[in-house]
Amino acid sequence: MAQNIYDNEAFFAGYARLPRSVEGLEGAPEWPALRALLPDLRGRKVLDLGCGYGWFCRWAREAGAAEVVGIDVSEKMLARARADTRDAAIAYWRADMERVELPREVFELVYSSLALHYIADLGRLMSQVEGTLVQGGGLVFSMEHPIYTAPAEPKWSLDAAGHKTWPLDHYLDEGPRSTNWLAPGVIKHHRTIATTINLLLRIGFAISHVEEWAPSEAQIAARPSLADERHRPPFLIVAAKKR
Amino acid sequence: MAQNIYDNEAFFAGYARLPRSVEGLEGAPEWPALRALLPDLRGRKVLDLGCGYGWFCRWAREAGAAEVVGIDVSEKMLARARADTRDAAIAYWRADMERVELPREVFELVYSSLALHYIADLGRLMSQVEGTLVQGGGLVFSMEHPIYTAPAEPKWSLDAAGHKTWPLDHYLDEGPRSTNWLAPGVIKHHRTIATTINLLLRIGFAISHVEEWAPSEAQIAARPSLADERHRPPFLIVAAKKR
Repeated sequence: MAQNIYDNEAFFAGYARLPRSVEGLEGAPEWPALRALLPDLRGRKVLDLGCGYGWFCRWAREAGAAEVVGIDVSEKMLARARADTRDAAIAYWRADMERVELPREVFELVYSSLALHYIADLGRLMSQVEGTLVQGGGLVFSMEHPIYTAPAEPKWSLDAAGHKTWPLDHYLDEGPRSTNWLAPGVIKHHRTIATTINLLLRIGFAISHVEEWAPSEAQIAARPSLADERHRPPFLIVAAKKR
Repeated sequence: MAQNIYDNEAFFAGYARLPRSVEGLEGAPEWPALRALLPDLRGRKVLDLGCGYGWFCRWAREAGAAEVVGIDVSEKMLARARADTRDAAIAYWRADMERVELPREVFELVYSSLALHYIADLGRLMSQVEGTLVQGGGLVFSMEHPIYTAPAEPKWSLDAAGHKTWPLDHYLDEGPRSTNWLAPGVIKHHRTIATTINLLLRIGFAISHVEEWAPSEAQIAARPSLADERHRPPFLIVAAKKR
C-alpha cells in the first residue's frame, strides 16, 4: 500500500492550514492553468484521483458535470469531503491508488491534482485510468515537477550576494525521495518528465499539452513570495487524450 | 540572421577537437538514443538540419536513404562536409535556419542534432519542417536540455564535501543566453520542455517519444567523466510525427 501520509496527525494539521486547504481551488496558484485545460464538463462523468477535501468534485458539479467520483486513500480527507458535500451526484470512494481497480469505460474526464507523485507504480495506475476513460476521454493532472522532487537537499542555495539557485542533482536517478514537508519522512516518487510522457504514450494516450507551471507577473505582484518559483517550476501539468 | 558561431575561427578550431568531431557519430554518447528513434530509412528522403561535417548524412545513405540533404549556415562546416563526401545522392545546402524556406512535402524524415537551441524562432522553423514533411513523416531531434541552458552560471557548484549540484535558476525565463563555450559570447536560446512540446503540438505534430538523455551505466564505466551528467540531463531528444 502507498504511504497514507494525509492520515498522519501532524501532516493533516499542517495541510489544513495551507492556503489551498483554507481557500479551496482559488487558494492554489496553479488552478487557473489546470482549469484552462479542462473540457466542457456539462453532462459528463468525472473522476478525481486524490480528491482530498472534495473541492474539485464540487466545482465540477457546479460546472455542469452529471456525476463526479472522488477517490482518496485518506479517511480524514474523505470525512471532511463528505461533511462539506450535499450532493447525491458526488460519490467519494476510499481506495489506495496503487491497487485501485477502476470500472471500464465510464468517465469522460479523469483529473488529478498533486497526487501522482505519491504513486510508486504510475504505469499501473495510468493503465487503469486509460481503461476507465471512454474513447476520446481526457486526462488532466498536476504533479510535483521532477526538478522539484529530484534533489537530495530540496532547499534554495544562497550565495554571498543573496542570489538564489536550486541545487539540482540526481535528476536522472528515479525512485523514492524522503522529504520533511509538514511531517518527517514523506515519501514522494521522483520520475523525469520524459518517463511520465513516454508512459502515457505507451499506454495509449496522445499528449495534448504540457505545462511547467510558473506564477504569472500578476500573481507575483499579488503574492511576491511566488517570485522564486520562476527559477524552477514547482508543478508539472499534463493534458492527454485516450486515443 | 542567426549567429554563425561555427565560422568563428576559435570556435571552429575548438569544435574540431571534440570527440564527436574526430570520431563522428560514435563519438557522441547520445547517438545510440537518437538512432533508436529513427525509422527504417531505406528508400527514404532525409533532411538534416545543422548537418555540420555531414556525418549523419553519410550514415543515412549507408542506412539506405535514397536522397539526403544537409543544411548548415557555416561555410567552414559545409566545406569539410563536401570534402568528406563522394555521393551524388547527398546534397549540402547553405542556409540560415531562421529564414530557410523548405520545399513542400518532400521528406520522410527530418533530423537535427544539437542545432535547434541556436534558433530564436523555433516556431517558424518547425512550421517549415512540418510543411516539408510528407503526411506521417517523422521528426527526430536533439537539443541542449533547458535545465542545461537555463542558469545564469552554467557550472557545477561544489560544496565543502565535494558534492556537485547544478545551480538552476531562471528556468522559466525563456530567451537568449550568452555563454563562453569554445568561444566567448555564444548565443543559445533557452526554452522549456513544455514550450518545445506545445509548439510542436500546435503546428500539427503528434509526440511519439521524449528523452532526457543520460549516459548508461556502461557508458559511465567506459568514460567515468560522464557520471555527473546523471545529475542534470545535458540533452533533450524528441521524436514526433506529422499528423
